[in-house]
Amino acid sequence: MAVRLNNSGICNFITDTELERIEPQVSLAAKMLDEEMGSKSWHNLPQEFDSNELEAILQAAEEIKNRADVFIVIGIGGSSLGAKAAIEWLRSIFYNEKSQLKIYFAGNNLSASYLSNVIACCEDKEVYINIVSKSGETLEPMLAFGIFRNLLEQKYGKIEASKRIFVTTDEEKGTLLRMAKDNGYRRFVIPEDIGGRYSVLTAVGLLPMAVAGIDIRQVMNGARNACLYLSDKKFPENESLIYAAYRNCLNRKGKRIEVLIGLEPDFHSFAEWFKQLFAESEGKDGKGIFPTAGIYSTDLHALGQFIQDSGSLIFETVIDVLNSNVDMCAESECIHNFGLAHSSLSQINKKVLEGALKAHVDAAVPSIVLRIPQVNEFEYGYLIYFFEKACAISALVLGVNPFNEPGVLAYKLKTAKLLQE
Amino acid sequence: MAVRLNNSGICNFITDTELERIEPQVSLAAKMLDEEMGSKSWHNLPQEFDSNELEAILQAAEEIKNRADVFIVIGIGGSSLGAKAAIEWLRSIFYNEKSQLKIYFAGNNLSASYLSNVIACCEDKEVYINIVSKSGETLEPMLAFGIFRNLLEQKYGKIEASKRIFVTTDEEKGTLLRMAKDNGYRRFVIPEDIGGRYSVLTAVGLLPMAVAGIDIRQVMNGARNACLYLSDKKFPENESLIYAAYRNCLNRKGKRIEVLIGLEPDFHSFAEWFKQLFAESEGKDGKGIFPTAGIYSTDLHALGQFIQDSGSLIFETVIDVLNSNVDMCAESECIHNFGLAHSSLSQINKKVLEGALKAHVDAAVPSIVLRIPQVNEFEYGYLIYFFEKACAISALVLGVNPFNEPGVLAYKLKTAKLLQE
Repeated sequence: MAVRLNNSGICNFITDTELERIEPQVSLAAKMLDEEMGSKSWHNLPQEFDSNELEAILQAAEEIKNRADVFIVIGIGGSSLGAKAAIEWLRSIFYNEKSQLKIYFAGNNLSASYLSNVIACCEDKEVYINIVSKSGETLEPMLAFGIFRNLLEQKYGKIEASKRIFVTTDEEKGTLLRMAKDNGYRRFVIPEDIGGRYSVLTAVGLLPMAVAGIDIRQVMNGARNACLYLSDKKFPENESLIYAAYRNCLNRKGKRIEVLIGLEPDFHSFAEWFKQLFAESEGKDGKGIFPTAGIYSTDLHALGQFIQDSGSLIFETVIDVLNSNVDMCAESECIHNFGLAHSSLSQINKKVLEGALKAHVDAAVPSIVLRIPQVNEFEYGYLIYFFEKACAISALVLGVNPFNEPGVLAYKLKTAKLLQE
Repeated sequence: MAVRLNNSGICNFITDTELERIEPQVSLAAKMLDEEMGSKSWHNLPQEFDSNELEAILQAAEEIKNRADVFIVIGIGGSSLGAKAAIEWLRSIFYNEKSQLKIYFAGNNLSASYLSNVIACCEDKEVYINIVSKSGETLEPMLAFGIFRNLLEQKYGKIEASKRIFVTTDEEKGTLLRMAKDNGYRRFVIPEDIGGRYSVLTAVGLLPMAVAGIDIRQVMNGARNACLYLSDKKFPENESLIYAAYRNCLNRKGKRIEVLIGLEPDFHSFAEWFKQLFAESEGKDGKGIFPTAGIYSTDLHALGQFIQDSGSLIFETVIDVLNSNVDMCAESECIHNFGLAHSSLSQINKKVLEGALKAHVDAAVPSIVLRIPQVNEFEYGYLIYFFEKACAISALVLGVNPFNEPGVLAYKLKTAKLLQE
């Protein structure tokens, strides 16, 4: 099953002829991607992931699950967004309220208030840490690591602390690797040729997921299926190519904002992962589609007015999940005048989406609908790989390098200079 | 003190002559607003808020604080965003983890998963409800109200349940008013002439804030100060007018996306409130600036690349808080090569902002910086009123009605029809 495109909200805006005209560019981009990526990197990762590494991740996760009350994942950008997305989407935004083992993300900001709150959550608890940084040269995670390592060393002493620290970093070089070796921290690998925003299906994302009880074999299974299917199929049977084609067609006719829509609050952090992937891959050389996100129906009461009536800048991409894992009867006296006799929440949610999309199409707002059968580990892995591939191809069609981030370097240089003053 | 504008990131993009040319339009809009609003509605609310209503809110909040373990605020859009913003910004996104009394928001989506999680949080707890809806005709809150009222009635019986339900609704009409009267629920008022997105400084926002221990007298005090100051001062001493002028100047030269930036994760929901206010007020008649948000430094590792290098569509508005309520020493071996000797986190956070804004200005991305002295109740009230006024004036200068939402009605009609099928 996996990702299927529904084009009813887009066929009024992109003609078959337009698709035919852009097809050669998209197919060329797919070919370039295959050639540039070769057999290495994120592109073939799901097929070639080291089974020993996977075993080691599962073992570490078992140990953490059995012993820790609090697990702190320290990383920023691609080093935290994918794991957070998985935990919230596959488990729930209520994960910490429902689980014995609490998982907090840190090192993703410079807020003293945030850090002191996480520190307070560690009081009288058994704490384990996972620091994720390829170089060990990124300010936010290294700053947070310093603080939480001190906390552990004060709590347990240096040797016992070192048993509670897991490091995910480069295999061969970098500050963090050196620290890990010096102190005997256990290590997982960020492959040298995989950039942060494409790293979620390595130990970067997999260790925190496994600690949250997510079946990471199934995640990789879904990604592997995506990898095989989306390598094999040609345009127009290949949804990642069609999606890349749609996005570029819309961009060329002035749609400069893509709103990724989910129908569940649990989808929020997945959208944050998506935003980073597309913003860093495409937003360069004066080009790019601004990636933003919303949850329906919540945001129909916030951004809905703007999406509907503000003109020609926006298109939306909707993640429509066909079968709900949880459902509930909605009936009560309070809603008897809505005509919802015997409706379930998931049915109502779908009708509201249908109503909104109809209104948007009438208002000349295109909707790309990506259908997935269910929220589960397999589909998460599939969807991650789908977006990674679609993003890389989109960026190549746009005419930019999907794998660098010159603008991030620009602000880092300015900041480094100010900090040294 | 309150909101002060720093123009160093904008003066390269808007000349004094441009400001002079737009000034008559902005001053006219301010005059129109005064005349249209008359003595009623949100415009004069902070000065004329009924002190009996305030007392009643405080009393209800005391009762809830003393008796409840769980307080559920049921509302969507303007009926929940302002209170959520206040609780997270003034207390913390960790509020529920630190507090005996847990506050959950519901009725702001149609997710069975979300609702079932909130229901699970009510188990074996003393539960109070606040349903917020002007008409009682909005699907999401009424659906959630039906579910939680059933839960209370099964738990306590009908009479005891009714003592735990507070209704915030219209004073004279509507489905919810009728239900409240029929069942003897205690009531608070949403004034007839105040729309959802301008209602946070009524019982809509004030009751949940007071339950969270927020000093709502100080909130209203801050709003009153803003109301007096921003009514009195003329362009260019009036920051709400200058901000409206900047926004419209930038929009007219092609900036179509405004990114509201905070420096603390606790600011997230304030930005959601801001997005709704501006999206619904401005996004109509084919016009509007798309309001979106980010937290620095987190989003410098996500949206930063795009903001820096994607071209000419974006400007950013930064909420810069001069004095931190919480700070922390950052020193550790882990960051010795960043040159941060003796720096505190708040100092580092500011330097990173400075570096980012310098890089953005160099890349032709304008930054409007709004400085506030501190995060507290007074400044929250001031900032809310500041944005409400600036938004209304911005919309009038743009040439749209700030107070309607025709696009929301459009999708609601389509949905209502589908639901009746």
